[in-house]
Amino acid sequence: MPADIAPSKYERDLDRNPANHQPLTPLSLLERTADVHPDRVAVIHGDQRWTYRDLYARCRRLGSALKARGIGRGDTVSIMAPNTPAMLEAHYGVPMIGAVLNELNIRLDAEALAFILTHAETRVLLTDREFSPVIKAALDLLDTKPLVIDIDDPAITHGDFLGETEYEALLAEGDPDFAWQMPADEWESLSLGYTSGTTGDPKGVVYSHRGAWMNGINNILTWDLPKGAVYLWTLPMFHCSGWCFPYTMVAAAGTQVCLRKVEAKAIFDAIATNHVTHLCGAPTVLSLLVHAPDAVKRSFDHTVHMMTAASAPPSSVIAGMEAMGFEITHVYGLTEVYGPVVVCEWKSEWDEKPLEERARIKARQGVRYTLQQGLMVADPETMEPVPADGQTMGEVMMRGNITMKGYLKNRSATEKAFAGGWFHSGDLGVTHPDGYIELKDRSKDIIISGGENISSIEVEEVLYGHPAVLEAAVVARPDEKWGETPCAFVTLKPDSTATEADIRAHCEKHLARFKLPKTFIFTDLPKTSTGKVQKFVLREKARAL
Amino acid sequence: MPADIAPSKYERDLDRNPANHQPLTPLSLLERTADVHPDRVAVIHGDQRWTYRDLYARCRRLGSALKARGIGRGDTVSIMAPNTPAMLEAHYGVPMIGAVLNELNIRLDAEALAFILTHAETRVLLTDREFSPVIKAALDLLDTKPLVIDIDDPAITHGDFLGETEYEALLAEGDPDFAWQMPADEWESLSLGYTSGTTGDPKGVVYSHRGAWMNGINNILTWDLPKGAVYLWTLPMFHCSGWCFPYTMVAAAGTQVCLRKVEAKAIFDAIATNHVTHLCGAPTVLSLLVHAPDAVKRSFDHTVHMMTAASAPPSSVIAGMEAMGFEITHVYGLTEVYGPVVVCEWKSEWDEKPLEERARIKARQGVRYTLQQGLMVADPETMEPVPADGQTMGEVMMRGNITMKGYLKNRSATEKAFAGGWFHSGDLGVTHPDGYIELKDRSKDIIISGGENISSIEVEEVLYGHPAVLEAAVVARPDEKWGETPCAFVTLKPDSTATEADIRAHCEKHLARFKLPKTFIFTDLPKTSTGKVQKFVLREKARAL
Repeated sequence: MPADIAPSKYERDLDRNPANHQPLTPLSLLERTADVHPDRVAVIHGDQRWTYRDLYARCRRLGSALKARGIGRGDTVSIMAPNTPAMLEAHYGVPMIGAVLNELNIRLDAEALAFILTHAETRVLLTDREFSPVIKAALDLLDTKPLVIDIDDPAITHGDFLGETEYEALLAEGDPDFAWQMPADEWESLSLGYTSGTTGDPKGVVYSHRGAWMNGINNILTWDLPKGAVYLWTLPMFHCSGWCFPYTMVAAAGTQVCLRKVEAKAIFDAIATNHVTHLCGAPTVLSLLVHAPDAVKRSFDHTVHMMTAASAPPSSVIAGMEAMGFEITHVYGLTEVYGPVVVCEWKSEWDEKPLEERARIKARQGVRYTLQQGLMVADPETMEPVPADGQTMGEVMMRGNITMKGYLKNRSATEKAFAGGWFHSGDLGVTHPDGYIELKDRSKDIIISGGENISSIEVEEVLYGHPAVLEAAVVARPDEKWGETPCAFVTLKPDSTATEADIRAHCEKHLARFKLPKTFIFTDLPKTSTGKVQKFVLREKARAL
Repeated sequence: MPADIAPSKYERDLDRNPANHQPLTPLSLLERTADVHPDRVAVIHGDQRWTYRDLYARCRRLGSALKARGIGRGDTVSIMAPNTPAMLEAHYGVPMIGAVLNELNIRLDAEALAFILTHAETRVLLTDREFSPVIKAALDLLDTKPLVIDIDDPAITHGDFLGETEYEALLAEGDPDFAWQMPADEWESLSLGYTSGTTGDPKGVVYSHRGAWMNGINNILTWDLPKGAVYLWTLPMFHCSGWCFPYTMVAAAGTQVCLRKVEAKAIFDAIATNHVTHLCGAPTVLSLLVHAPDAVKRSFDHTVHMMTAASAPPSSVIAGMEAMGFEITHVYGLTEVYGPVVVCEWKSEWDEKPLEERARIKARQGVRYTLQQGLMVADPETMEPVPADGQTMGEVMMRGNITMKGYLKNRSATEKAFAGGWFHSGDLGVTHPDGYIELKDRSKDIIISGGENISSIEVEEVLYGHPAVLEAAVVARPDEKWGETPCAFVTLKPDSTATEADIRAHCEKHLARFKLPKTFIFTDLPKTSTGKVQKFVLREKARAL
């Protein structure tokens, strides 16, 4: 046998075994922290405070109680809840028995929920009382009903009980010393989250133990998140498994402060009272805080670190947040990549630049998270990266270990998403000479007017530059002559006196003629549950004009 | 087919593919940091300063030049070098072509080196000029000679050239844009380090890409090591691949300051000049710094974080280091687990305790690193963990992903080390009620006197408690009546006037009668290249008394 075919000495008798190879899973992080820091506060919810000993015992109770009900490997357990302890516990208790957690978007209507419960083949539904009306309507649409467990959060006193058991009673059935099972393989499925489905049916994004473990750790590395940090749940935990922060904070042996509703007073109070050091949220949460009444604002003497995704915060909002003691990090990602995996990593040489320029730099999506292996802006046909010229548009693509397993029961969509060995984000952008990427648009958000491509983001940025503009969104409006023209939806600040003519004049000053919105509509903007502007709603409005 | 045997919906069409599954390897960390932070200083060596762009290009040159010489997958490349840039580059350049890096202990003699070069089947030897005499002698003992490359570090001007090419000339042959290959599987072998072999031949410990990647990340998490940290190479890089810090610092996009020799002046100068924030070393390095002449000590206005392993530093040393601005973290590990994986994680409630008590707490080995999955003190026969009573002795065992693949070409030793699915460390210890473990001894360091077990560590701690004692080591001395008795080797501080009677009286005050050393010998202690006391030398001395 030729030497290069004989097994190398480095492959003989050096196999994986239980001592040197164990599955990567968020579950070990909880086991480890509960063992090492049993008395640390893991969860705060109103007046409730649970140590890691408590949290671990409750998760084990949940897993064992579900197992006793016949739930196990490959079964779906859905949950409809805001950011409560039960929601957090489900992220550990459910996978402890090999089941898969499906976090439902709490803003969905009954029909969408029924579609998901059917598609996911949900066997157990944990549901917070607040959502009983919509859940009841959804259950009425189902042929096969799951086991329903009501979550009776003490913070809520209304809403019918729909199920046969209450969540705390279920935990009481369980064993706090339950000998849960590690996944046999780190590739096993951990959770299932549905995309918002702006076009067609929502798609079920499946996460693995390995991937969630990795992005959980990645958050620590990318954010320099210290051990013992205190995290406030302003980001919905149903959204990309809360960007994997349920795992991040347990790895860091930190404290998670629950929050049912994103309200300025509750956020400021939580920061001041619980010494919150970190939180995440859509730019709308930043706006909420900056524009909160003075009576609600609280001062604190520590820096609060906040990550924000989706569109870039305008400079005025960044300045307002900084003045209040927040340090803003801009990140970017998608459900399919476990939340953000791209960060506008700040360089100290930018500190001294004027605010406007800092805001412009921070508006870029940036570079890979520490553990993100592949990121490129490329031509989706040739798979060639675009030149790093800040000009040439391409599609943003990712590869590595922080990409979903695929879409549940949707082989063709999965194959399409992974064409060429990269995940196709559907977002369009450029690569700047310094390697930072910047989104220019969603593929479908490009406006094509007279054969010219117009980036709706570019037009929006100009609109945000007008001091009277609170929010703005630009979509294509069908046009007989030009094919499409930009149509701007604008929300003015409450005290503003600006007129359409003022805004139009401002745009003329900053935009090429063909990019000027032909139509201006002054209105509130429709948003998704995660704070993203629902452009498809605006597109319909523009079509109907 | 029964439902529980049909493939679950969570296993259908959700396979690994290049977009969602890539090998975990330190190589991606370098690729990412060089891409994101090309202009950051990666390496400082005297007056030399290399950015990440430079470092990455040099590693790629090294890999491609070796490949052009016919080196590839499964080949061993050995290196004999102190903590220089070439040593660091080899940690990346060699695995870029699937070859395995074997770091040689620079304190070994020619015979031991020849044994390793033969056992490892070394095909290329990179060797620093300083070590030409011993390497020449080792090469003379070999039947088959490897390709020899001399490293002509500008900091050294003596030593013969032994090989056909110099390291920089080799790099000049290479391609800075070399398209290196990812390992096909993260379990592939990355590096090979030999144990010190106090008994019998040294054993070759094989690391995987996955394991080194993981402990590299683990260092960041456990130490809260921030991005951009500056690390000083006081720990030998040949020791457990420098505890994986060559990978840690690249993941953190930090700066690595090289250091050929561990000397107090050079260390203080590097800290003050390069703003070093982190370093590691044996307790002897702490002693070196604390006892350095005042003329050599430098003051600095930042906290320097230092990890120390092996035996616990005495309280006077901890106090001295703290007074100079160092924060000491006590860790524990072995070559077989990629360096330290156990840390005496500090709790803020201990801050206010008196120094002596803090030193006693810090002397414990502690708890698992963040990513260390399994750690227990257990009976090696029954594999049952000992009770957490701080009294019952057992063997320290580890499992998880930070355990070696095994010993190279030594199936029986590998199987023995992994008996029962755990790695057997050979260290004996206890578990305290708070879950922190504390080493009591190496199995072979227990002294059995009149049927009673005596922990040599316990006796040593008492000796260190005497203000005149600089260093102490206790071993068994054969005794006709008792079987064995403790024999103490003691180094007094230079200015001390203590007598043997003083030391003996101190021991009598703090030790049970049967634990008292019967023999005291005042002398310097023999040490290994990594600063560990060579107890086997002392044991021979005690036997010969």
